[in-house]
Amino acid sequence: MEAPKQIGILVFDGVEELDAVGPWEVLAFWTAMYPQDGYAVLMFSPQGGRVRCAKGMTLSVDHSYSTLPPLDVLVYPGGVGTLAHLEDPAQLEWVRRQSASGALMTSVCTGSLVFAAAGLLAGRPATTHWYSLEHLARLDPTIEVRRDQRYVDSGEVITAAGVSAGIDMALHLVARLASPERAREVAHGIEYEVRDPASLR
Amino acid sequence: MEAPKQIGILVFDGVEELDAVGPWEVLAFWTAMYPQDGYAVLMFSPQGGRVRCAKGMTLSVDHSYSTLPPLDVLVYPGGVGTLAHLEDPAQLEWVRRQSASGALMTSVCTGSLVFAAAGLLAGRPATTHWYSLEHLARLDPTIEVRRDQRYVDSGEVITAAGVSAGIDMALHLVARLASPERAREVAHGIEYEVRDPASLR
Repeated sequence: MEAPKQIGILVFDGVEELDAVGPWEVLAFWTAMYPQDGYAVLMFSPQGGRVRCAKGMTLSVDHSYSTLPPLDVLVYPGGVGTLAHLEDPAQLEWVRRQSASGALMTSVCTGSLVFAAAGLLAGRPATTHWYSLEHLARLDPTIEVRRDQRYVDSGEVITAAGVSAGIDMALHLVARLASPERAREVAHGIEYEVRDPASLR
Repeated sequence: MEAPKQIGILVFDGVEELDAVGPWEVLAFWTAMYPQDGYAVLMFSPQGGRVRCAKGMTLSVDHSYSTLPPLDVLVYPGGVGTLAHLEDPAQLEWVRRQSASGALMTSVCTGSLVFAAAGLLAGRPATTHWYSLEHLARLDPTIEVRRDQRYVDSGEVITAAGVSAGIDMALHLVARLASPERAREVAHGIEYEVRDPASLR
């Protein structure tokens, strides 16, 4: 059996808890229950170790930028911590390198602001938390800002709306990387009510 | 201003990630944004320190059974780790003491199996993850097992269905402890689509 393809969920100080753990639950449930689909998921942070989330929860992760295996898929959650990333050239450069290496780039909530600042969303449709839709448009006026979508799949980049919409985006990812049937099985396993079941067809 | 009433979310080795973090997001968002409602939320574990969740995520918590303040509300998530609790007399006694002290007892997923084993659900309507409905009935045949409800509020005890249903249960808790309007604000803040908006009226 080949080594599984790697999905990585980035966490950082100020990450919104459910932005990260919603997709984690979907993807970890999927990869644990269906290893035959050929994917694995891990959490990592810039320096590894302890991460204090936006609402005070503390995560502890084993992997950092320096120990991270090559990613096939990156999940970039949002949260108040993304505001510092927008002003951090090294962080934006790291994002561009992930994209250039061929990783499928996915975001939740204000994670898409960082993608916008890194130039990844130029000329693409994209979304973010409803509170930050104008901010997204200001960061890059070439973005076709979508309102009222749980997530927007533009091919190499997928952006989700706020917080809990990361669960819908992750289920879409399962549908895209495995099959719609698999995504429905995972949704049933975690008893998640998909807003638009047709999206998993 | 009075000291806030305390909500505690129990985490333990083998806790299902979203069972705990779904309610955490709802309750931490609520208590952070609306401190005037008079509630605070914390996570704790039996011994404090690091907790390895069911799918491999690691949480780090400051509080343990010995440092925990008196709770007004307990949230007991599910996950494979609850199976050991069912066989642990000290754990069941701890649960009974929390209930006897007057805490509103709430569970997510297989957390309700522990409540059943502790005798808290005798003669009450209750639910759990769909996979464990029969297990719940076997633990205490006097339970009126409810299928197809996201959560069941029986007064002193509230039980939720599987995994993501903890989010709905937590929003109901906000509606009950504060107001339906507040629960709608929190749901909007985390962009959660409530399955049955009438439940927040």
